[in-house]
Amino acid sequence: MKKRIITVSRQFGSGGHSIAQAVAERLGIPFYDNQLITEVAKQSGLSEDFIRENEEYASHSSSFLYQLAMSTAGTYGYPSVYQKLYEAQTKVIQDLAEKESCVIVGRCADYILRDRGDCLHIFIHADNEHRSKHILEKYGPTDKTTAQRIKDKDNRRRNYYRFHTDRDWGVATNYHLSLDSGVLGEETCVEIILKAMED
Amino acid sequence: MKKRIITVSRQFGSGGHSIAQAVAERLGIPFYDNQLITEVAKQSGLSEDFIRENEEYASHSSSFLYQLAMSTAGTYGYPSVYQKLYEAQTKVIQDLAEKESCVIVGRCADYILRDRGDCLHIFIHADNEHRSKHILEKYGPTDKTTAQRIKDKDNRRRNYYRFHTDRDWGVATNYHLSLDSGVLGEETCVEIILKAMED
Repeated sequence: MKKRIITVSRQFGSGGHSIAQAVAERLGIPFYDNQLITEVAKQSGLSEDFIRENEEYASHSSSFLYQLAMSTAGTYGYPSVYQKLYEAQTKVIQDLAEKESCVIVGRCADYILRDRGDCLHIFIHADNEHRSKHILEKYGPTDKTTAQRIKDKDNRRRNYYRFHTDRDWGVATNYHLSLDSGVLGEETCVEIILKAMED
Repeated sequence: MKKRIITVSRQFGSGGHSIAQAVAERLGIPFYDNQLITEVAKQSGLSEDFIRENEEYASHSSSFLYQLAMSTAGTYGYPSVYQKLYEAQTKVIQDLAEKESCVIVGRCADYILRDRGDCLHIFIHADNEHRSKHILEKYGPTDKTTAQRIKDKDNRRRNYYRFHTDRDWGVATNYHLSLDSGVLGEETCVEIILKAMED
């Protein structure tokens, strides 16, 4: 089936955001990464600030409190605020896919849209040397080493993905195309994705 | 660094062999899959029949006897025949990489050549429906279901890879490019690999 939606999962510092944005520009279709926050806020009634702090990258998404909030939600007959956030995100992503061709970054979109035949699911990764360089250039230094920042983000995304999808993050068979942006270069990644969309 | 060697790891029934062969033809460079058996026989003194039965796909590579043969080899101060086979395979692959541009299928070549900067490491996979169809077309039916044949081969290759590399088979970060041949189609996979080799 002809593909019209692209989901991009990416390691922190792999340049996945820029690659996804360039693909959307070249195809002339909307690009959703942080833009989703506004939509999720409208859908859920939660504040944009809360969503920004607690969506995919939430530092406590793998914490005991988060797990407890998720697991006890059903017990008390109401969804926790985290569950509400995930459900709103799911609804926004499903509605976007229904409405228009687009590129969606992160947020388990590959899993949420797994049953659609019109999606191309992509994973972007790179080795730690490339990621460290990219992180310093894009976000600057912090009091943590880049190795620690990479480890923290990888753990958070892995836990978040595992929690919501019951699949392992970064396993090749979850995606139609996985690319090492450090070795291939960002421009070649863009061209490969466009080639994959041609058919 | 300019790439001149391609390693292709592939799921059984994904068409990885055909894709790798087509890439080698298009690049005009040698292709090594079963051809490696003759070289390994020369290197090791083992018979081609023994190698064919006991290399990568060995039905007992995950068995207790195989594990025992591998683990006790050092204890008694001589390499087991399985270790000898793996060492010969490693030597043949390293020598080929040193000698010429080529495409090498399977046999942990991605791991064996991991420290070279001139290799492009590829993983080809597909969903079970596509693989079943491909297996029946290429190898015909047997007394086992295609689902069982897929499961057996996956387990063997996963165990073999895990045993020799201490890495998990099919994890995207082990490869520079992972492709779903069922969704992308074999010809597009070939073109994507050629594109990745251009830079």
